[in-house]
Amino acid sequence: MTDFFNGIAPIRYEGPDSASEFAFRHYNPDEMLLGKPMKDHLRFAAAYWHSFAWPGGDPFGGQTLERPWFGETMDHAKLKADVAFEMFQILGVPYFCFHDADVRPEGASFAENTARLREITDYFQQKMEETGVKLLWGTANLFSHRRYMAGAATNPDPEVFAFAAATIKTCLDATQQLGGENYVLWGGREGYETLLNTDLARERAQAGRMLQMVVDYKHKTGFKGAILIEPKPQEPTKHQYDYDVATVYGFLKDFGLEGEVKVNIEQGHAILAGHSFEHELALAASLGIFGSIDMNRNDYQSGWDTDQFPNNVPEMALAYYEVLKAGGFTTGGTNFDAKIRRQSLDPEDLILAHVGGMDACAAGLKAAAAMLTDGRLEEQRAARYAGWDKPEGKALLSSDLASIARMVEEKKLDPRPRSGRQERLENLVSRFV
Amino acid sequence: MTDFFNGIAPIRYEGPDSASEFAFRHYNPDEMLLGKPMKDHLRFAAAYWHSFAWPGGDPFGGQTLERPWFGETMDHAKLKADVAFEMFQILGVPYFCFHDADVRPEGASFAENTARLREITDYFQQKMEETGVKLLWGTANLFSHRRYMAGAATNPDPEVFAFAAATIKTCLDATQQLGGENYVLWGGREGYETLLNTDLARERAQAGRMLQMVVDYKHKTGFKGAILIEPKPQEPTKHQYDYDVATVYGFLKDFGLEGEVKVNIEQGHAILAGHSFEHELALAASLGIFGSIDMNRNDYQSGWDTDQFPNNVPEMALAYYEVLKAGGFTTGGTNFDAKIRRQSLDPEDLILAHVGGMDACAAGLKAAAAMLTDGRLEEQRAARYAGWDKPEGKALLSSDLASIARMVEEKKLDPRPRSGRQERLENLVSRFV
Amino acid sequence: MTDFFNGIAPIRYEGPDSASEFAFRHYNPDEMLLGKPMKDHLRFAAAYWHSFAWPGGDPFGGQTLERPWFGETMDHAKLKADVAFEMFQILGVPYFCFHDADVRPEGASFAENTARLREITDYFQQKMEETGVKLLWGTANLFSHRRYMAGAATNPDPEVFAFAAATIKTCLDATQQLGGENYVLWGGREGYETLLNTDLARERAQAGRMLQMVVDYKHKTGFKGAILIEPKPQEPTKHQYDYDVATVYGFLKDFGLEGEVKVNIEQGHAILAGHSFEHELALAASLGIFGSIDMNRNDYQSGWDTDQFPNNVPEMALAYYEVLKAGGFTTGGTNFDAKIRRQSLDPEDLILAHVGGMDACAAGLKAAAAMLTDGRLEEQRAARYAGWDKPEGKALLSSDLASIARMVEEKKLDPRPRSGRQERLENLVSRFV
Amino acid sequence: MTDFFNGIAPIRYEGPDSASEFAFRHYNPDEMLLGKPMKDHLRFAAAYWHSFAWPGGDPFGGQTLERPWFGETMDHAKLKADVAFEMFQILGVPYFCFHDADVRPEGASFAENTARLREITDYFQQKMEETGVKLLWGTANLFSHRRYMAGAATNPDPEVFAFAAATIKTCLDATQQLGGENYVLWGGREGYETLLNTDLARERAQAGRMLQMVVDYKHKTGFKGAILIEPKPQEPTKHQYDYDVATVYGFLKDFGLEGEVKVNIEQGHAILAGHSFEHELALAASLGIFGSIDMNRNDYQSGWDTDQFPNNVPEMALAYYEVLKAGGFTTGGTNFDAKIRRQSLDPEDLILAHVGGMDACAAGLKAAAAMLTDGRLEEQRAARYAGWDKPEGKALLSSDLASIARMVEEKKLDPRPRSGRQERLENLVSRFV
Repeated sequence: MTDFFNGIAPIRYEGPDSASEFAFRHYNPDEMLLGKPMKDHLRFAAAYWHSFAWPGGDPFGGQTLERPWFGETMDHAKLKADVAFEMFQILGVPYFCFHDADVRPEGASFAENTARLREITDYFQQKMEETGVKLLWGTANLFSHRRYMAGAATNPDPEVFAFAAATIKTCLDATQQLGGENYVLWGGREGYETLLNTDLARERAQAGRMLQMVVDYKHKTGFKGAILIEPKPQEPTKHQYDYDVATVYGFLKDFGLEGEVKVNIEQGHAILAGHSFEHELALAASLGIFGSIDMNRNDYQSGWDTDQFPNNVPEMALAYYEVLKAGGFTTGGTNFDAKIRRQSLDPEDLILAHVGGMDACAAGLKAAAAMLTDGRLEEQRAARYAGWDKPEGKALLSSDLASIARMVEEKKLDPRPRSGRQERLENLVSRFV
Repeated sequence: MTDFFNGIAPIRYEGPDSASEFAFRHYNPDEMLLGKPMKDHLRFAAAYWHSFAWPGGDPFGGQTLERPWFGETMDHAKLKADVAFEMFQILGVPYFCFHDADVRPEGASFAENTARLREITDYFQQKMEETGVKLLWGTANLFSHRRYMAGAATNPDPEVFAFAAATIKTCLDATQQLGGENYVLWGGREGYETLLNTDLARERAQAGRMLQMVVDYKHKTGFKGAILIEPKPQEPTKHQYDYDVATVYGFLKDFGLEGEVKVNIEQGHAILAGHSFEHELALAASLGIFGSIDMNRNDYQSGWDTDQFPNNVPEMALAYYEVLKAGGFTTGGTNFDAKIRRQSLDPEDLILAHVGGMDACAAGLKAAAAMLTDGRLEEQRAARYAGWDKPEGKALLSSDLASIARMVEEKKLDPRPRSGRQERLENLVSRFV
Repeated sequence: MTDFFNGIAPIRYEGPDSASEFAFRHYNPDEMLLGKPMKDHLRFAAAYWHSFAWPGGDPFGGQTLERPWFGETMDHAKLKADVAFEMFQILGVPYFCFHDADVRPEGASFAENTARLREITDYFQQKMEETGVKLLWGTANLFSHRRYMAGAATNPDPEVFAFAAATIKTCLDATQQLGGENYVLWGGREGYETLLNTDLARERAQAGRMLQMVVDYKHKTGFKGAILIEPKPQEPTKHQYDYDVATVYGFLKDFGLEGEVKVNIEQGHAILAGHSFEHELALAASLGIFGSIDMNRNDYQSGWDTDQFPNNVPEMALAYYEVLKAGGFTTGGTNFDAKIRRQSLDPEDLILAHVGGMDACAAGLKAAAAMLTDGRLEEQRAARYAGWDKPEGKALLSSDLASIARMVEEKKLDPRPRSGRQERLENLVSRFV
Repeated sequence: MTDFFNGIAPIRYEGPDSASEFAFRHYNPDEMLLGKPMKDHLRFAAAYWHSFAWPGGDPFGGQTLERPWFGETMDHAKLKADVAFEMFQILGVPYFCFHDADVRPEGASFAENTARLREITDYFQQKMEETGVKLLWGTANLFSHRRYMAGAATNPDPEVFAFAAATIKTCLDATQQLGGENYVLWGGREGYETLLNTDLARERAQAGRMLQMVVDYKHKTGFKGAILIEPKPQEPTKHQYDYDVATVYGFLKDFGLEGEVKVNIEQGHAILAGHSFEHELALAASLGIFGSIDMNRNDYQSGWDTDQFPNNVPEMALAYYEVLKAGGFTTGGTNFDAKIRRQSLDPEDLILAHVGGMDACAAGLKAAAAMLTDGRLEEQRAARYAGWDKPEGKALLSSDLASIARMVEEKKLDPRPRSGRQERLENLVSRFV
């Protein structure tokens, strides 16, 4: 045991009235909801990078966080892993997620990176066996190193594509070794800074080909996890090719991969793309590509990715409502791609940020489950479209413009609008949050 | 002749040094550029609605414009048409565009709407023959009337779908009768205000079916024009299904219509979706769905559609550069979906707004053609990707992750980033604008 | 009694578990909080305009709402008043607010406008006496009519300034007659569309002079209410002179009116200016100019004023926390500058929108009061600044740069940052919402 | 001579048709405009930090730029200075600007920082004498170091205030020694991340007191330069106290410093605050606090500070038009607070970015001067307000509400709106850009 968390005991559920900061007031892992324990609905994962690899910098300031594991040796990497798994156990999160760059120091070559990743993968494997913590997903950081400044799969230089492809291979291997349930592709640099130097068609084709290779490798190695793309519109780039769910869907259709790849949707990225989080969830579900979520909170008024811990229960209830309507998570889960604020210096802050976030998710999930059980929301939605379930409605869809025009004229159709009842539905939702 | 424009003579090209407000300084219709007269590159169209149907209202104020043709009779409609064609001739625009609701008063029934549309279509036909002005596209206004408040194709009420379908049929007929070169679908209400009362999957399917009907009717009637969708992210709705080019592409692929339907891209709508205009143009071209443009200007700092007349030549040069790279317009053109400001009360303002806009487009086009002729921009773009044209680059794309990883390790690949040269390319562009 | 609301009975408090849509679950008018009944904390006011004067239009669509009082006669105006007061009584709101243009048809002249305003003022007076409903504030609509298209006080035409000044006088008179507790100035057109035709310095001076006249008239007539400015950054204009609280403060200081005029802060306007609502409230309180609030909800992702009924309790708790810290309302209150969605056609929607909004405010207020009573938030805030209350901290503020530099060097000061504890404080807030 | 720029010769004016990338096409330093050489209008300054201190990082990636002077010794600092002055001479910029943290490595204590700053100040002094390059302004970096994470003047910890004050003193001394014409305060951390832990009133008072100390020190030491505040709304914080020009003005008025302190306005910061650059310039001029400008370009579609080199001449013409109308710069100038893109790796990129930016400014200035000489824009603006210069207009401003109301009624005033002529004015501007 390191003493980083200074004796903080595992967090337990104590109910809404608990006076303790270090207790769950809503997250009760084994409480049954809709026939399943809460923990199996939420499938919480802690993100390695923000909690253990981020030094607290922002565009106008450097490191604020001081951690004993900051350093460039494998010993630092192992100390980091020790503390991380201690946090996972204190929180009782069943999963974690990582990028290669979070868990091992950058090496001088691809071979050294690979060796270091293998070493830490073995170390993780042992810790996972000891603790029972599982891997929700692994991924490769193909955006921080300067070699990727102009893209990874979409780089104008084929050597960078090759380096990226090779790195993905090692990360897929590590993910498979650790029993990861998904593998994520985050295209932070798969976009452009200026269209003036960019061949958008070519870059998009490169990205499609890389994705195909990933899918092929998955099948070849028998990796059972899902392949996920995480949409983001911009930042760090001017434009990313995986802008939002709809854009990713068009991309998958274009390359015939819509049956192979799903999306990992982040609240903050949805916001930056101009959508509500629940929109992106509902859209992905309707297109059959819903995979997993990154549950953070973006400041609606900041035009960049603020990645804050979530705390607005009414908003989360709407998100989990879409997750539940989509049938819940299969391989996916609730990953906290959230980072403590750079002023939150104390080890306790790291624990309490997760406690608050997990509790907010749990409260949101409970509200969502209650809304679904209640049924009035779905009832009213169905009633609004009832005309389409009648024979005339169905017939209309197989008719044609000329016949419809004749019918409208003959029947002197003059449709009367009906109230959309938005405020009533919002009031109904308010009952549950 | 009405005397609305009070004797303003047809606008002529007088060159950059002309002292006259009522002259073109850049738009010289017959000047040859890249082997084609400027007018055939630009294919200008005036928009009926903003210039003749809009009363000057905004969300906090009512009518400011006073026009003799404002009224609800067919006589008003014909006076409006007389003035419109006078403006087309003063400006020398070869095309115009219209919605049904712009050109005829709203009737008490579908039948009356149809009759009125036919009457004004005949009137247009005669004026078009007299003046030589052609129709770039027609469209149906399926958003202003309260029956469409919850959508047209995507309405929860099948009767509204029917009314919309019937109306599209009449507008397609009118467009065909007038030799329109395109038919546009603008989905102002094809979206939602709140996800709480919306079945997104169902509505999207309805929209897909309507689009199929339009395509079928086009083939059945032998209409030769292109079918265009005009993407817009929001406003008037919280979310529109045709958010941006990438979203429309995914939608078309889903319904197998990507070979049948193209996009009409508006500068202001691109901006509201978080994209640059040139991005949307380049993307559409790369996906094979580029059709036409609405050239207006949106205030970058206003979160709504300001639809101003364009005046920033450097920005327009980048847009026309993408149009030229895409091979130029075929059925499409440059429609001004721009409205004079609500304080621009005088008839002269209407003329001068177009003169300025046309001149700005012409200056942008000339700069774009010069850049293309110069060739350095494309040369540098090609050079940046040259590695992909070499055998090793090509081989890479047909390789697989495992082989690539071996190769990277064996060759000790360590790709070195190269300058993206953004400022140099921007300087190069500055030479031409 | 009109039968517009079709027998909806007055809304009563039935507690959180009430199954009825037509009951308050949180708003319990006489429940005591911090020594005062809830109703006296909240001081709810219904806004006449959005609920009774707005036809449901938006920039792409016309009227959706059909109301028997829509029309241009005084009989229509009185029917509207009858229904309005019925709604006030059904809801049990103690106050209402109005613009002159909401309550009387536009006349052909200033004299006719004045006569009509007097007639309806008398009618209101009688209804107020009958029902006990009071006037929170009156105001003049100096933005909808075309004469104001280029501003009211800031118009380039002195005659418009005069017309506006005269109109304000009549509205102040009406407000005084009705015992209004405030008079509001909303500068919807006090700004510009383009700087190219605007003399910003001159317009700002005109606005300052108009405000002085209003203050002078208030003192001359003995009007006891507060004069309030309602900040807004833009929409309908490109820029408004009363952009936000800080801007209004600078303006008041410039004209020496900071002791005479306060602000009416709207959530949606705060958002559009890039601020959180609670920021604007806290800032106004700290500057001594906090007056009243417009409690609506703006869609954070729409760049225009959506004016929705509020429903997010965690956000409202933060707002009322600032109101309570500022000492609560004196002349001000909670006005709903919120409109039902244009698809909410039914009379019930109007009632239920208010019920939901009032309940959300009440829940927010209760949470805010609980947080204040709990005291931990203020305790931790005070602790963070404790160094400034020590003698060394106080001395520092009366020192000078050179002395401080010597001291820093001599004492080898090397200040160590302390955690800002944001997540812990957010968790603390979550306990109460 | 270092050989960093590899023999790039000083950039000369060669006129618009120059084929060379390494020549000015518009910036002709000694060309007379409105009676003054162009260089004295523009007063260009190169920013030390972005060009020499920034490693190329962004929120998702680390260092991309490799510079021989990156390192933590005074030798590195001097090499950096050598290269910087070589660039100043190649470009022919008359001025430079710096933060303390850009020019010396961070020391272990305040005393060491001071000693290092003195050493490099002496080094600068010598280089300035050799080259004739002057200092436009100096400033202290009170935002990057972790001690400032919660603010400098506005920190909850008095020791941080003291450290900041002492540091400002040393930077003022250095600025004075080097004959700096201004001293700038940039409040990157003078704001808050969350209102929950912030005492906004207290922090604002601390900031006011610090500013007073700076002004006092200036007078005591006889520093002749202007004190400037650079407004910014947010990023890196959630909210900064110096949000925009109007906010700074209110702040200055509150502390009685409006005659002592002016503003340094940055294009990108204006944009982020929701204003056009020209608005902020015009407002500052009208309030008597216009000082200097940071001329960069912000991506309008990115919600963070992109700080790109400027290239849009029509926009710059509007900015310099306001500068000229304000009487031009006195102590201020045109500082490029612009950084090359992180992919612009080559030394040439640094030179060419400035060449393009300087040329764009020069072209903008020439257009602005031509517009001013032409006079039509000011003529039309004056004509619009002509009514206010007549006796009736003047009388109106000294009247009162009651008298005006009587007058409006008696004269049956019914003001008729006149066209705002926006498009015509935009066309007029287009003639010059």
